[in-house]
Parts: sequence; C-alpha cells; structure tokens
Amino acid sequence: MAVSGRLRSKDLAQQIRAAILEGRLRRGSRLPSSRALAESLGVSRTLVSAVYEELVAEGYLEARRGSGTYVAADLPDLRPSAGQTSRPPAWTPRWQGEPPSRPSSRDVDFTLDRQVVEAVSARSWARMWRFLARQKPPVDLGPPEGDPELREAIADYLRRARGLRCGPEDVVVTSGAVRALELVARALVPLGEAVAVEEPGYPAARRVLQDRGARLVPVPVDEDGLRVDRLRAAGGVRLAYVTPSHQYPLGVRMSVSRRIALLEWAAWRDAVVVEDDYDSELRFDGPPLPALAGLDGSGRVVYVGTFSKVLAPGLRVGYAVAPRWLRERLVQLREASGDRAPWPVQRALAAFLASGDFDRHVRRVRRRYAERRAALREVLGSLDGLARLRGMEAGLHAFLELAPGLDEGELAKCARERGVWVSVLRPYYLGLPDRSGWLLAYGGLPADTVRHGASVLSEVLREAARGSRPVAAAARALR
Amino acid sequence: MAVSGRLRSKDLAQQIRAAILEGRLRRGSRLPSSRALAESLGVSRTLVSAVYEELVAEGYLEARRGSGTYVAADLPDLRPSAGQTSRPPAWTPRWQGEPPSRPSSRDVDFTLDRQVVEAVSARSWARMWRFLARQKPPVDLGPPEGDPELREAIADYLRRARGLRCGPEDVVVTSGAVRALELVARALVPLGEAVAVEEPGYPAARRVLQDRGARLVPVPVDEDGLRVDRLRAAGGVRLAYVTPSHQYPLGVRMSVSRRIALLEWAAWRDAVVVEDDYDSELRFDGPPLPALAGLDGSGRVVYVGTFSKVLAPGLRVGYAVAPRWLRERLVQLREASGDRAPWPVQRALAAFLASGDFDRHVRRVRRRYAERRAALREVLGSLDGLARLRGMEAGLHAFLELAPGLDEGELAKCARERGVWVSVLRPYYLGLPDRSGWLLAYGGLPADTVRHGASVLSEVLREAARGSRPVAAAARALR
Repeated sequence: MAVSGRLRSKDLAQQIRAAILEGRLRRGSRLPSSRALAESLGVSRTLVSAVYEELVAEGYLEARRGSGTYVAADLPDLRPSAGQTSRPPAWTPRWQGEPPSRPSSRDVDFTLDRQVVEAVSARSWARMWRFLARQKPPVDLGPPEGDPELREAIADYLRRARGLRCGPEDVVVTSGAVRALELVARALVPLGEAVAVEEPGYPAARRVLQDRGARLVPVPVDEDGLRVDRLRAAGGVRLAYVTPSHQYPLGVRMSVSRRIALLEWAAWRDAVVVEDDYDSELRFDGPPLPALAGLDGSGRVVYVGTFSKVLAPGLRVGYAVAPRWLRERLVQLREASGDRAPWPVQRALAAFLASGDFDRHVRRVRRRYAERRAALREVLGSLDGLARLRGMEAGLHAFLELAPGLDEGELAKCARERGVWVSVLRPYYLGLPDRSGWLLAYGGLPADTVRHGASVLSEVLREAARGSRPVAAAARALR
Repeated sequence: MAVSGRLRSKDLAQQIRAAILEGRLRRGSRLPSSRALAESLGVSRTLVSAVYEELVAEGYLEARRGSGTYVAADLPDLRPSAGQTSRPPAWTPRWQGEPPSRPSSRDVDFTLDRQVVEAVSARSWARMWRFLARQKPPVDLGPPEGDPELREAIADYLRRARGLRCGPEDVVVTSGAVRALELVARALVPLGEAVAVEEPGYPAARRVLQDRGARLVPVPVDEDGLRVDRLRAAGGVRLAYVTPSHQYPLGVRMSVSRRIALLEWAAWRDAVVVEDDYDSELRFDGPPLPALAGLDGSGRVVYVGTFSKVLAPGLRVGYAVAPRWLRERLVQLREASGDRAPWPVQRALAAFLASGDFDRHVRRVRRRYAERRAALREVLGSLDGLARLRGMEAGLHAFLELAPGLDEGELAKCARERGVWVSVLRPYYLGLPDRSGWLLAYGGLPADTVRHGASVLSEVLREAARGSRPVAAAARALR
C-alpha cells in the first residue's frame, strides 16, 4: 500500500476498501496487526485500530478474537469494472438519441417553450431577498396550504384585480399552475373520467390530466372561446379545463355569454370548471374581464393562477382558489404528498406582494410588453391576407394564423434557416387541426429584436406566397 | 344606481356588470346616454364613455350606431345565486369529511410525517439570501438540468463525502428526492413494469412509482438490508428502489456483501437500481458507508439525494446523479415538463455549499442530533425486552420494535392520550407486516423533550406488559 504525505483515517479506510473490492486483498486473507501496519505507515496505532474497527462495522473486515483481523470471507466478488457502460438497458423505452437543436444566441427565439419574461427590477428583487435574510430559518415543510401571509396577499390581489370573492382560507399555494391542476385532478378525477379540454389547448395541462387517468375530450375553440354548445353535446363530461382570459395558445378571450353558458352547463351537469388564469395581469387594452370564478355563485369553479408569466418562470409558484367543499381535500392531499412550493420563495413573494412592489412591477412590464406588441403589429399587422395576427389583447405571446396553403412546418424551417425560431400550432391539437399558424412569444425580446424577427417572418411568408398561385387565392379569401 | 363618494371607472364598470348579471338591467334595454349618466352621477363624460366602451368590448353592452348603448340582447340569464354550495358534486370520489387530528403545541410530536429539523444558523441563512439579493433577477426557467454552480457544488460534495465518481454534468437538480425518482420512473418504467421496493418502505416513493404505472414487488428487509436473494427469485423485476444508507423506515444499513450482491443482480438482469440516500450526512458512529453508486462500475445505479433532511424540508431541493446513458433522457423530460426547483433557491443553495457553510452546518447539527439520540437511548435503550431501539446509527428517526403481543396501534393511542404522538409501522407495508413498532422522529426535538416523551412511551409499554402475561413471555424472548 503506497502512502505518501500525512495519512488521514478516511484515506486509509478508502484505500483498504479499494484494495478489497479490486481483489488486491483476497477474501478471507489476514491483515497485518494494527501495530505492524501503523509502524510501516508511520502513523499512530490508534488511527489504524479505528480504521479496522470502522471497516469491521461496515462488513469489509472480520475481527476473529485472539487471531487478528481478516478480509470478510463471505464478501462476494466485484469483478473489475470494464468502465461505465453508455448503453441503456435493452428493456427501457426507446429514446431518440439526438438532443433537439436549439437557437443560438444570435438567433431570434419566438418559441413558446423557452419563454423569457421581463425581469423584476434589481431594487425590488434585492428588497425581496434581504427581507427573507432577516426571517427565522425554517425547520419544517410549512403549512400544507401555504404561507399564511402569501395566501392573504394573493386573496387580496384576486379580490381587487380579478373580481373573486375569496379570503386567504380559500387559497392553496402550489409549485406552479400545472401542479395546482394536478392537485385538483388528484382530488376530483376518478380513473377513466371524461375531462373536457380546449382544442387546441395547453399540452402540459393535458399531460397532467392524462397522468391522473383522465380520458380527454377535446372541445373546439372559436373567436368567443370554448364552444359550450359542443361541450353540452359531449356526453359524460363532468370536468372542464379552460383558459378564458387569454386562450392558450390562440389568445382569444371567452365572451361573457359563453362564460355564463359555461357556468350554466356546470350547474346542469353538476360539473366542475377549472379556470386557468395564467396571464390575466398582462392585458393591454383596458382591464381584463373579471375571472369566471368571480361570476360563479354556486361553488363550481376552481381558479388556478401562477406567478410564472408575470414575475418569472423560475420562481415556480402558483395557487388554486377552491370552493369550500374542495378545500380540505386539497390540503389533505397536499399534506400527504409533501409536494409544495419552497418556503423561502413563498415568504419572499408575500413580502413582494404586500409592499406594493408587485403592482409597480405589473405596471412597468405592461408598458414594456405593449411596446414589443406594437413592434410585432407594426410588421405583421398587415400581411395582405397571408396571415392574421390574433390574441394580441393580452399575455406574452400572439398567434399568427397562416392562410390555407401555407405550410406552418415547412415555412418555420425556412425562418429557422434565417435565424428566427417560432412554435407551430400543430402540437397543441389532440385531433386534426382546423387552422394552422405560428405562436410567437414576443414578451422577453427587446422591441428592436421583435421588429427584426418579425420582418424575417414576413419575408418568408411573402416569398412563399409569390411562389404559389393557390396561396395567393387563399390570401385573398382570408383578407 | 346609488353611488357615494368619488366614483372610479373600475367601480362604475363593476356596478353595471353586477346590475346586468343580477337582472336589474334587462337584456336588450337601452342605457342612459353617457352625457346623461355622467350628469346624474356627477362624474366626467369621458369616464362614462370609457366604461361603456370597455363593457362593449367585454360583451356586456352593445353600441348601436346612431341609437345609443344597449344591454347585449343575447346574454344568457344568470339566475340569482342561492349562495355558494358546500356540497361536492355527487360523482367525485368520496372523502372522509373530518380532517385528521393533530398534536397540540404542548404535545411531544415524534411522528414522521411532520418532521422538524434543526435550523440553519441565522448567520449563514442571512448570508445565503443576501447573496441572492445581489444576483441578477431571472428572466426564464433556467437550464433544465439545474443551476451550473449548484451542480458543481453537489458533485464536489458527493465525490468528497459519498465516494461517487461524478462531475457536474452527471447531476440533475430536482424539486426534492421524490421528484427525482418520478423523473427516473418517467424515463425508465414502461406501463405495468415490475419495480422492486423495500418492505417495509417509503410510501411517497411507492406512490410515485404507482402513479407512473409500475407494478410494485415488495422485497423484505432484514438486519443487513434488502434481501437480494428474494429479489433474485422475483421474476421480471428490472428496477429496484432502495435506501441502503439508512433503510426507510427501519433504519438498518445495507451490508457491503448485500450491496455487491445487488450490483451483481443488476448486471445479471440488465437492471437499474435507484439508490435514495436521503439522510447519509447525518451519521453518528463514524463516517457513512460510501454510496452504492460509488461501488457501481457498470453505470446501472441512479443516485438520488435531497437537502430536505440535512438542511430543511421547506427548501424542496433534491437531485439525481444519473449514468451517462440516462442523462440526456432526464434533461429532455425535464425540459418538456417545466417542473424544476425554483431558480432563486438553487442559486442561494449553491452559494451556501460553496462557502463551506454547508459543511459547518452538518458538523453542528450532527452534534445536536447526537445529543437527542443519546437522550432517546438513555430512556428507551433498555426496556427489558418489551421493545428494542433500532436504526440509531444515522438519520433523524429511530425504530422502536415492539415485542409480539404489544399492539402498536392501541398503545400509540394510549401514548397520544398522554400527549405523545408516534407513527406506527403498519402503513409502511404493502403486504402483511412481519414485525410491529413505532417510528420516532426525534431530530427536531430538544433533548429534554425527547427524554420526557420517551419516558411516557416507556411507561405506556411497561403498563401494557404488566397487564398481559403473553407479552411478558414474548419480552423474555426478544430480550
């Protein structure tokens, strides 16, 4: 055993373990006495004895009374490793080997899945965490329903800005809106239950519902939001997931008559509606419609919100506002799972909301996003019927509907070759799409970048149209 | 419309909406002109016009050119609400109405599910968040594999303290160990796949595996940990979830020969082992055994760790260290789900680890927990064979095995009536239990409280034994 420098007991133990595992010390062989080994290594006998004792306790060595210390005889062989395999086990699900390509830093990235937002101001960011630095460090998971002050601040905000009639006791804090939906699904959806989702709709919400064993029933969306008549016609549905403020991904707002019809449907079917209000703060043309949950007199709407869009996706805090009969179920499920938003983030966020920094932030970013939206509209607002910009009233993304005959996938590839990345609509459908186009997340990009990216998209569309007679005809129709 | 004080446009809009929804303004009826309403309310005409416009945009009102403003004719009726119902929909899964009773603040709470830990020192807590206050606020979700500096710090720690051969590129940060397991299950477990779990074992891990469609195969645990011979005999299993450092919940440590046998099983079956190393930092009698993943030469062990036990459950940060072939799958799944630990917590934690504060914290709490452990052993260490304390070498909880004939549930109730709460072993089994006893989470309780609580438990057991001849006989056997 070659040893150099000052030997610590940890190192010695590790060297003996390695020698045993690699077969340099054979099973059942006798080790030198602690005195002899100590002398040969130039360390204290106490050190060696302690290491022997430790390795006996671990099962590597055996002490035989009066006879010395041996390598454990019943230790199985660990054949020398042939290096770590990079081969997955044959039985695991197949996997496309190549990671998807990603935009470079010089590219313009309008894609929805890597959405960027306008940062909180450095000043209020610092205030938030310096506040937390003065709090007592936590010793447990915290209450399953969430930090009391954060729930107070959220309820206050929802009463004020979203027309909800709710108190802190109605709010359950979660690690994001999708987790809130998962919690509700866990409480409400029996295996195989039919759940209505918007078509096209939010893939992450669908995934969570499917994971809970729901059978998804896609219900089409038009200019006024979810087609409630089609929902009525779909038999057996007793839970509907909707995004009335700014339909995801098309961006339409559900009209008041549809909202009322949806609530009537819920009363008629004894059903539950989950309202995902993910970006209602970011409305540009006047205040948002009050939430569906604010119209609901009968306790059949569960409201789900998030700070991901308005503050930062990286915070991972969302919430559910549940009718009274559902609340205790959610809290108990939450308690059992241990799955909640980190306590430090909840505390800091509570302070951020209570101080007024949140309202100031919303006002500031609303102006910023409005500038970017204007840049987008400036370039893509009049494409001579090749494409129509939709869903611009709110949020951080818009939908550019393409004229029939323009291939969303092919043209997205052309745009990508010129350094502009967009999301295509297709994956947001469960069934066959009834329209096509691009989703453009413009929120996180400076106005100049938006303008440049949009110009490239406009060129790509115009060039495609010039090359194609049918598209020109379709464009006249869409105009 | 009765209005008092200074009227804001928001309030006026809300009042008109309410009047429409409650039927006080009929569908299709004409509203006063903006000029007339402005005069009667004593506000500016601009304000009223703006409100009308907003309500037209929302769909409550209709503007007919040259004729004035009307309540929308096609608005469905919303019957006056009879107050929010507290009745759940009849079709939802049944629910036990009563919330479970909870210990009062004067009680001694040894239960596992509300585990409390020793807090981080106020000084290093403050340092952690003041560091974060100086960072640039985040604008996106952050990298799917986690904060680079945190992964660096975790890899560094695992090499140093757990014998893993890993770099930052092998680490994926998650929101807790259970989420790490979920991610691995998502990547590896096809529907209906047989997964071996320890019996008794960790309920949260089982729940996650079942949610992913796994078929659980319970494998018994003895004094040396998982019975690998029984695992070998169980056909068709290709994934095993184990807690070798401190078996959850019994607290035994898996012996070296079992570890090697487990790795041999994995090589033989082309299987994968998930090692959950949830509390190995908290070892009292010498350093912990190196992790199973450190012994693994063949890339078949996924290592899962957490900061919940050693720092604070409320942080919700864990990690997986994956073999090379699995890494890209995990990152892509993570990217698709958007489900990751909050960025601020990751950054702050990275600073905490890099500064040496983490090591200082571990040394400090280890001393604290050792005192509490000594208090527990002092009282419950010699119960004349009525019960035996186990799993004391590590972690924050111990297992008090009861002699046959002592009813863990009945006696737990007796203890609770005297203000001491414990967890019983039964729910940790999938099948029939082969032993019974109490789980005692002593980590978060001051030594005096531990001593007092333990005395009550000891009394309860002695009184029960006095009343029962068979127990006295069994106690002699267990002794």
